[in-house]
Amino acid sequence: MYRSHTCGELNASHIGKKVTLAGWVQKIRNKGFMIWVDVRDRYGVTQLIFDEERSARELMEKAGNLAREFVIQIEGEVIERESKNPNMPTGDIEVLVQELQILNPSITPPFTIEDATDGGEDLRMKFRYLDIRRNPVKNKLVFRHKVAMQVRNYLSQKGFIEVETPYLIKSTPEGARDFVVPSRMNEGQFYALPQSPQTFKQLLMVGGMDKYFQIVKCFRDEDLRADRQPEFTQIDCEMAFVEQEDILNIFEGLTRHLLKEIKGMEVEKFPRMTYAEAMQKYGNDKPDIRFGMEFADLNEVAQNKGFRVFDEQELVVGIAVPGAASFTRKEIDKLIEWVKRPQIGANGLVWAKYNEDGTLKSSVDKFYSEENLKEWADKTGAKAGDLILVMAGDAEKTRTQLSALRMYLGNELGLRKADEFAPLWVLDFPLLEWDEETKRYHAMHHPFTSPKKEDIPLLETNPGEVRANAYDLVLNGNEIGGGSIRIHDKETQSKMFDFLGFTHEEAKEQFGFLMDAFQYGAPPHGGIAFGFDRLVAILGGQESIRDFIAFPKNNAGRDVMIDAPAKLDEQQLDELHLKLKL
Amino acid sequence: MYRSHTCGELNASHIGKKVTLAGWVQKIRNKGFMIWVDVRDRYGVTQLIFDEERSARELMEKAGNLAREFVIQIEGEVIERESKNPNMPTGDIEVLVQELQILNPSITPPFTIEDATDGGEDLRMKFRYLDIRRNPVKNKLVFRHKVAMQVRNYLSQKGFIEVETPYLIKSTPEGARDFVVPSRMNEGQFYALPQSPQTFKQLLMVGGMDKYFQIVKCFRDEDLRADRQPEFTQIDCEMAFVEQEDILNIFEGLTRHLLKEIKGMEVEKFPRMTYAEAMQKYGNDKPDIRFGMEFADLNEVAQNKGFRVFDEQELVVGIAVPGAASFTRKEIDKLIEWVKRPQIGANGLVWAKYNEDGTLKSSVDKFYSEENLKEWADKTGAKAGDLILVMAGDAEKTRTQLSALRMYLGNELGLRKADEFAPLWVLDFPLLEWDEETKRYHAMHHPFTSPKKEDIPLLETNPGEVRANAYDLVLNGNEIGGGSIRIHDKETQSKMFDFLGFTHEEAKEQFGFLMDAFQYGAPPHGGIAFGFDRLVAILGGQESIRDFIAFPKNNAGRDVMIDAPAKLDEQQLDELHLKLKL
Repeated sequence: MYRSHTCGELNASHIGKKVTLAGWVQKIRNKGFMIWVDVRDRYGVTQLIFDEERSARELMEKAGNLAREFVIQIEGEVIERESKNPNMPTGDIEVLVQELQILNPSITPPFTIEDATDGGEDLRMKFRYLDIRRNPVKNKLVFRHKVAMQVRNYLSQKGFIEVETPYLIKSTPEGARDFVVPSRMNEGQFYALPQSPQTFKQLLMVGGMDKYFQIVKCFRDEDLRADRQPEFTQIDCEMAFVEQEDILNIFEGLTRHLLKEIKGMEVEKFPRMTYAEAMQKYGNDKPDIRFGMEFADLNEVAQNKGFRVFDEQELVVGIAVPGAASFTRKEIDKLIEWVKRPQIGANGLVWAKYNEDGTLKSSVDKFYSEENLKEWADKTGAKAGDLILVMAGDAEKTRTQLSALRMYLGNELGLRKADEFAPLWVLDFPLLEWDEETKRYHAMHHPFTSPKKEDIPLLETNPGEVRANAYDLVLNGNEIGGGSIRIHDKETQSKMFDFLGFTHEEAKEQFGFLMDAFQYGAPPHGGIAFGFDRLVAILGGQESIRDFIAFPKNNAGRDVMIDAPAKLDEQQLDELHLKLKL
Repeated sequence: MYRSHTCGELNASHIGKKVTLAGWVQKIRNKGFMIWVDVRDRYGVTQLIFDEERSARELMEKAGNLAREFVIQIEGEVIERESKNPNMPTGDIEVLVQELQILNPSITPPFTIEDATDGGEDLRMKFRYLDIRRNPVKNKLVFRHKVAMQVRNYLSQKGFIEVETPYLIKSTPEGARDFVVPSRMNEGQFYALPQSPQTFKQLLMVGGMDKYFQIVKCFRDEDLRADRQPEFTQIDCEMAFVEQEDILNIFEGLTRHLLKEIKGMEVEKFPRMTYAEAMQKYGNDKPDIRFGMEFADLNEVAQNKGFRVFDEQELVVGIAVPGAASFTRKEIDKLIEWVKRPQIGANGLVWAKYNEDGTLKSSVDKFYSEENLKEWADKTGAKAGDLILVMAGDAEKTRTQLSALRMYLGNELGLRKADEFAPLWVLDFPLLEWDEETKRYHAMHHPFTSPKKEDIPLLETNPGEVRANAYDLVLNGNEIGGGSIRIHDKETQSKMFDFLGFTHEEAKEQFGFLMDAFQYGAPPHGGIAFGFDRLVAILGGQESIRDFIAFPKNNAGRDVMIDAPAKLDEQQLDELHLKLKL
């Protein structure tokens, strides 16, 4: 037994006890006649004391030679601390050391293993195993485990079966790029790593598994953007004999369970919003509804008042920024500069202050009376003290720009509170999206997503308006889950394939075994998949997923700790029947 | 709502209730005026009845057109069944159908979806999604889920954290062949899929994670033997600040927990045996101890009696086969033929019957008196009614051959009972094994496995005799888990590398980042990994792992259902900077 207690559990009730602890040296305070050492493990930190008057000389010497991150084991007596530390669970006591063993020395670590470290991102990634010793990282991994356990407990209790689907599957030309795996035994052939277990979960439904889930790694060989990982984790779920409402209920239940068990929060029934409504009110299909600032169409009240900039545009749209009437000219100019950045691409921003004294003042006073501005305030819901911001242009583009500004302001004004959780269902996504390149419609989700029954006739006349039985679960402005009810009948399916321009042969080539399977009695089914990395990060009150992943890759898809990917030797390539072509 | 109840839950208490069910048509009995249909879902089967006298004509017609595996939804009334079926949970009732909807028709399935199917292995693999509808397969997947949940609950409750380690890692020249993944973004470079998370779990210990586990897919590109899969699942575990005893306790606890929760069995403290003892008593490092038949060295009593075949040999070794004295000459000849097969390669078999009447009779009566044979019986523990079988030859080879015979007899005589569980720890594995090809010692486990302290001096004199702190958990003759206490101090580690013939540079090249990590305060640590597929199969009372895997691959590493691996198109190869070399 290396230890009788962990470094996090001793308190006043242990005073007088003999204990054995093991852990890492966190901090040393050496006054010569007295040496204090903080020893750390996963569970906490305990203060050790070596005292000239009470400790043997060899022991004092040994303690004097300790350095940060040495692994030690000590035996000693728990004593009351003179100056207690109420911020530490073990702060009432210290351990008077009687024996000290150095289990392993350490060279000086490249950064300090403290909550606030001096190590930069790159260094911490290279020495990730040291970074994990730090509370901020370690706690996130422990947190992730807890969320995963709660997910499994909830779903299992609801009758879901976790089924492991294969990782070595077949490459499909659809969607993002696959990572592939050359087969040595099947010369010239490749497996692919799954982008998601979509096909397999549908096959499990055909197989009568009824309720399936899996917390599973997925792989996508995309050019990486910030905060994307080539391998990521998904909570993948599918149910048979269900309609959309059944799915929404179960997974609203899951999310509510997590918020309760993990965050101690009781949440009301989740609000629901159609895709069309989300786009209109927030310019965004994953709106953060923690702060108002809903869009107001101002065409009616802002056009035809002589201000040509507005008159010519498809849409004039505004938001009320709470309490921002006090913004200085400089602050407002900064906002204008911000929306003009190429990433946003707006032409400008019109503003109107609804002052605390009830007066209204705008950047376009020449064209609009206070009475006019009052109409803007009514539409945007601005109250005294608020700032109204208005943009104009093509409807879709302008809404997107105003959405970006809204989110920017939400962050700047501290309205996106990490400890507040506002889930939201976004429903009725479009079934199809127009692709400018190929000049045709593509399935927005995938070709097995079912259209709303009442919209099927629109396929012939207004395909872009056909709504799908597809839904997203949005949390604090992030899409954390998305799914759909699948097509399970042949007639609708072949109508879809026809519409998407697949010949029977092409459909068979790409979705062959799933279509084959569907001939043998496919039940009505649907599902959802949650981005687990993102879900955990958001529940943890963070924007970045990276620290919730034990060993993440950088933006070039490299693991800088182990230095992967790397070259293979010739022999390995030969065995795989491959040659490099550089 | 597609259903008010599942097909497995209706019973006498529901009589008179209106219900809605959905599922697959399992069986149809059509008497014209009356039609019975069994409808099936994951939860069970319910009998439906359509009755000319009580049902509309359209309904009778519709029911008459049903066929096997149609997906249907019905509404009806639960009524008492005339001829009850006590073997069915729903056997007391049937549902008088009032409405029938065909949710999806089915073409005739390629084999019957019954517990005893007429489908051969190949066909069932190709249509795995139909095979999963069958109870024997479906139940195994549900069982697997339950075992996984229990593993997670136990370990989590013991303070273990499940940490997801990466799948896209770096190829190492050690061990079995890696599956590799070409990187598009890092030209000419490859990731490898992990054979196990060994390195990462050790890094997590360096990172202070203290107690780690993961149920995780691992990959090995080996030439496949029967019942091996290129991707397989492991329960991977590691603990810091532990000695061997701590690990044995925790994982004995896990195994006991599983036996209790899954099989309802209370198991005593697991017996322990050294590797040397297992080899001597069973000729096998994973003995099935459910049936005795321990080996007895017979040199002392069987040599120098004039039987040259024994006299010349290193070892004469025997077993007592319980109740087999009644074997006919033909049955014994069959055993002799069996051990002479090239796979076993023995020269022959000497037998002695300890008859029920107390007399003894052998195939070598010319050389051995009944008194001599009585000595054999004493050594092997044979009692009246048993058959003694004796082999002779090189010690190691002969033990292996006798072990094969023992297992064969255990199976033939039905001594390996599926509902009996006999766990066993095998300890003190050799640290090194001699490799004839390279004429040197190799690490039996891996180069980080620690030797027993007291055996370190033997490294210089008798390396083959150095024992490791390595252990296997054996269940019913299968190794279900294995692990070791790792080396954590630099001195022992460099002694090991020296001994294994690594230069400092070579060691750094192969184990670089782990060795680097070890400089920063590695705690004492050790772990274990369980083969999850095998564990589940054994707990399920089966020898083959295949049906406990949802979508297994065949012996050529192919998924015949989705037809993977497959060719890639030129463009994909180009993007990966690869050319085929066939």
